[in-house]
Amino acid sequence: MDKVYLTVDLGGTRIRAARCRADGAIEARTEQFTRAEEGANAVVERIAESLREVWPAKGKVMSIGVVAPGPVDPFTGVIFLAPNIPGFVNLPLRDWLQAIFKVPVIIGNDANLAGLAEWRYGAARGHSHVVYLTVSTGIGGGVIMGGHLLVGSRGLAGELGHVKVDYHGSPCQCGSVGCIEAIASGTGLVRQVREHLTAGEKSQVTDIVSGNLDAINVEAIACAAEQGDTLANTVLDDSFYALGMAVVSFLHSYNPSIVVIGGGVSNLGERMFKPVRDTVSRHVMDPAYVCPIVPAQLSGDVGLLGALALALDPPPQSKN
Amino acid sequence: MDKVYLTVDLGGTRIRAARCRADGAIEARTEQFTRAEEGANAVVERIAESLREVWPAKGKVMSIGVVAPGPVDPFTGVIFLAPNIPGFVNLPLRDWLQAIFKVPVIIGNDANLAGLAEWRYGAARGHSHVVYLTVSTGIGGGVIMGGHLLVGSRGLAGELGHVKVDYHGSPCQCGSVGCIEAIASGTGLVRQVREHLTAGEKSQVTDIVSGNLDAINVEAIACAAEQGDTLANTVLDDSFYALGMAVVSFLHSYNPSIVVIGGGVSNLGERMFKPVRDTVSRHVMDPAYVCPIVPAQLSGDVGLLGALALALDPPPQSKN
Repeated sequence: MDKVYLTVDLGGTRIRAARCRADGAIEARTEQFTRAEEGANAVVERIAESLREVWPAKGKVMSIGVVAPGPVDPFTGVIFLAPNIPGFVNLPLRDWLQAIFKVPVIIGNDANLAGLAEWRYGAARGHSHVVYLTVSTGIGGGVIMGGHLLVGSRGLAGELGHVKVDYHGSPCQCGSVGCIEAIASGTGLVRQVREHLTAGEKSQVTDIVSGNLDAINVEAIACAAEQGDTLANTVLDDSFYALGMAVVSFLHSYNPSIVVIGGGVSNLGERMFKPVRDTVSRHVMDPAYVCPIVPAQLSGDVGLLGALALALDPPPQSKN
Repeated sequence: MDKVYLTVDLGGTRIRAARCRADGAIEARTEQFTRAEEGANAVVERIAESLREVWPAKGKVMSIGVVAPGPVDPFTGVIFLAPNIPGFVNLPLRDWLQAIFKVPVIIGNDANLAGLAEWRYGAARGHSHVVYLTVSTGIGGGVIMGGHLLVGSRGLAGELGHVKVDYHGSPCQCGSVGCIEAIASGTGLVRQVREHLTAGEKSQVTDIVSGNLDAINVEAIACAAEQGDTLANTVLDDSFYALGMAVVSFLHSYNPSIVVIGGGVSNLGERMFKPVRDTVSRHVMDPAYVCPIVPAQLSGDVGLLGALALALDPPPQSKN
């Protein structure tokens, strides 16, 4: 009998679900709006409905993997918080779904599972020690060590956006200061450019957004930088140097054989990757730490494939 | 037949060896000078001699664990470099010892193995996810995740002294800048005090060392701080805040259930632990990351016991 795995990518806007094979082939898929405003019970019911739609007519469902948009306890399958879904607070989603479908359910957070997906099906195939970063509105991480997702004692490992690179530095939305997210995320880049402009500095960014500082985004900054704008280039240079220094910290901490970087900011391509790689080459304590630093390969299906990778290889149940 | 393990603590000054049981009991021990100046071959012969002295008259030697004073490839057992032993460059010590004694030999570096020792026999007993730091002349680390030493792809993981906390910061002896070692190690503390004094600031430290700035050490700084000296307290406060921020990074990266800190600087006790713990409480992104931060428990035998812990549970042979 055919073995299949069901996966759910739960987002603030959309619920996607799929029926997959272990090799990453997606046999069926479905998508609907989350309609988070209708409350947690309605959302859980829609998740169940999506799973029924992709349930196989024949064949055995081995397990269900779920990507949650926020912190999760991987040992209990409880979603601590989903910032975009009101009512998803300490929600025992795993137990609820297991009660309905009578198969094992495993839940993980989005950045961790994107790392798992890149390891099993994307840019880090063939490696056993991987650091994955998503550099987007915020910065998230996922770490694979010895072929397993690193989850730590409570499932909270790999929060690489909140590693410090500047202990006397700028405030971060997490409540602390000096996190790499506060500098090199999209939010961090925009904040810095806006601060310089508010302080009276001149930049082509102002023209690109027609004087509306609220409209500044990463694309506008990158566009100005490409035209030779000093302010935009200064902010990008310093921020990607900081990102490179954070990667140096990850190399010294984890000694991976590859670093994969995805997320919206990574779409800047070599404008981001080159300064990161140059900084790493200059600042590692020994050349033996240097490894490839490459773009992510998976795009829209990264969540479904990450949930599949998790379903195939759940983390052990150690809690200490 | 009784099962025993032999262990070697190879230092620049002394070679120590012991015969141990799995529970950490030391049945026999020996010690001699390394006499590194006589060259690598002579040192290896003395290691072999030490092992013969503790070899059991009856009973089975299961394996030999060796602590090396420098970076090691745990997969090949090659010592890349032992800074205090001339000629120990790319030395295949594991293969040499295995050829002599015909039992498995496993080699690790001192900070990693001190972490293993604290986990199995010291302050972190009962935990599966441990971050160990030694804050001494330099700063070293050892990380246990899921009950195994984290070694990474080439055996170089856990170099926690060279994690960045200040990406535009002071030069570090590793050739880079902004490492926590450059700030909070004994060397970093002394450098900062000396820089302030050279710049013309006043401090009781000067009196304590009778005006000889070369004689400044951590004890002199701590002594001045205790007497209310402003400069000494400012340097300690800022440096231990930086150390606390580095620990925050480790909690977000690894999510351990305990942090153990040893090494000479940790002998300052609460003068170091309190600011570190306070910084951690204030700066973690979620209270779920907070865990005990405790002093190391093992002292003189930490090397022999770390080698024993390694001999009992060698890292897997994955290399990618």
